[in-house]
Amino acid sequence: MAGAICLTSGGQDSTTCLFWALQRFTPVSALAFDYGQRHRLELQAAETICTLAGVPLVILPLEIFRHLGGTALLDPSQEIRADGGRGGLPNTFVPGRNLMFLTVAAAFAYQQDVADLVIGTCQTDYSGYPDCREQTMQAMEQALSLGMDFPFRIHTPLMYLTKAQTVALAQDVGAFDAMAYSHTCYAGVFPPCTRCPACQLRARGFAEAGVPDPLMVRAQQEQQDHA
Amino acid sequence: MAGAICLTSGGQDSTTCLFWALQRFTPVSALAFDYGQRHRLELQAAETICTLAGVPLVILPLEIFRHLGGTALLDPSQEIRADGGRGGLPNTFVPGRNLMFLTVAAAFAYQQDVADLVIGTCQTDYSGYPDCREQTMQAMEQALSLGMDFPFRIHTPLMYLTKAQTVALAQDVGAFDAMAYSHTCYAGVFPPCTRCPACQLRARGFAEAGVPDPLMVRAQQEQQDHA
Repeated sequence: MAGAICLTSGGQDSTTCLFWALQRFTPVSALAFDYGQRHRLELQAAETICTLAGVPLVILPLEIFRHLGGTALLDPSQEIRADGGRGGLPNTFVPGRNLMFLTVAAAFAYQQDVADLVIGTCQTDYSGYPDCREQTMQAMEQALSLGMDFPFRIHTPLMYLTKAQTVALAQDVGAFDAMAYSHTCYAGVFPPCTRCPACQLRARGFAEAGVPDPLMVRAQQEQQDHA
Repeated sequence: MAGAICLTSGGQDSTTCLFWALQRFTPVSALAFDYGQRHRLELQAAETICTLAGVPLVILPLEIFRHLGGTALLDPSQEIRADGGRGGLPNTFVPGRNLMFLTVAAAFAYQQDVADLVIGTCQTDYSGYPDCREQTMQAMEQALSLGMDFPFRIHTPLMYLTKAQTVALAQDVGAFDAMAYSHTCYAGVFPPCTRCPACQLRARGFAEAGVPDPLMVRAQQEQQDHA
């Protein structure tokens, strides 16, 4: 057993995790899911970031969420809201999404004799998603290890960090150049919309860290170049 | 919250579980997965059995296992063997299969406000599949409940039964008429091949229970009718 597999979404958090993993494991590979997300920009971002990180990326199709339905993240006709889901959860909650991602990632890792999985879930500002909690991750680690008889470890380097601390970690692990190509915006546009909850959470983190967001720097640069 | 969802494969065990569930929950619905199993007979059996049980059946496509590969159950070019898999496991082991089934079933159940899941896994003669163990099921119950913030219960009525005891339970819960249409044979044929490990395990259970297998009775009957 050697190396690690990092779950990758093309976002800020998984980009940080990917570079964090590169400092600790050899080899690192990345795994992304094509699960019918509204915006293809997400997977394109994952591809660019993995190329910059020099890490092989596998994209696995995971169509099941389309069939389960009922989330604004997959349904372009639904407006994204911080509530409106079951039990007051955001209507972007995809029930069991991280559980499914981890189960598939573990099966994939098992085939390659890799026990270490890295995922960018975060409890601090977890936005009401119960599948991001430390407790959930611990329970999943146990279920996967028992279910495949294989000693999985789920690493969540961002679990207790604020967004500002995640920005600092990204700097530490050398993720900033790649971060310029990460994708966060729920509206699925570049330059980012700056108004959706995801853009605002991201902006707050960089503001608190007192560091410009490489993605916004790149957006401004490209706008100037086109002017 | 009311009712239960029973995972259904068209086999002997899930058929028994379905009728067990019908005695305890209202309403019961059944969930099967089209995951690229070698034999369509399995899903046809599930449909027939659910019709006989008067239970609605949903079949969800779950193509991910095709992409993960590496198991004789999905690859017609591989011979089915009791070993030959990783760590001495049967080469029919699909890593994480039950974990994936349960995670999808839980997401599906969550959407319908159903907390009770029934699955026919069995530790007694679990054939070396670690995802059938009681411990695995308990860990999954916890991971799913935490991950969706919903009080799932995973019921495994066959967990500690021998195959002979499962036959007795099937009689008790009135599953025998439907059992005649269940499908077990790895060769995917009707009448069953009687030689594969699955057919032999099934035959041993009925022999030990001292009861004829309704499936074999039906096979003989149909052969006589055609003679």
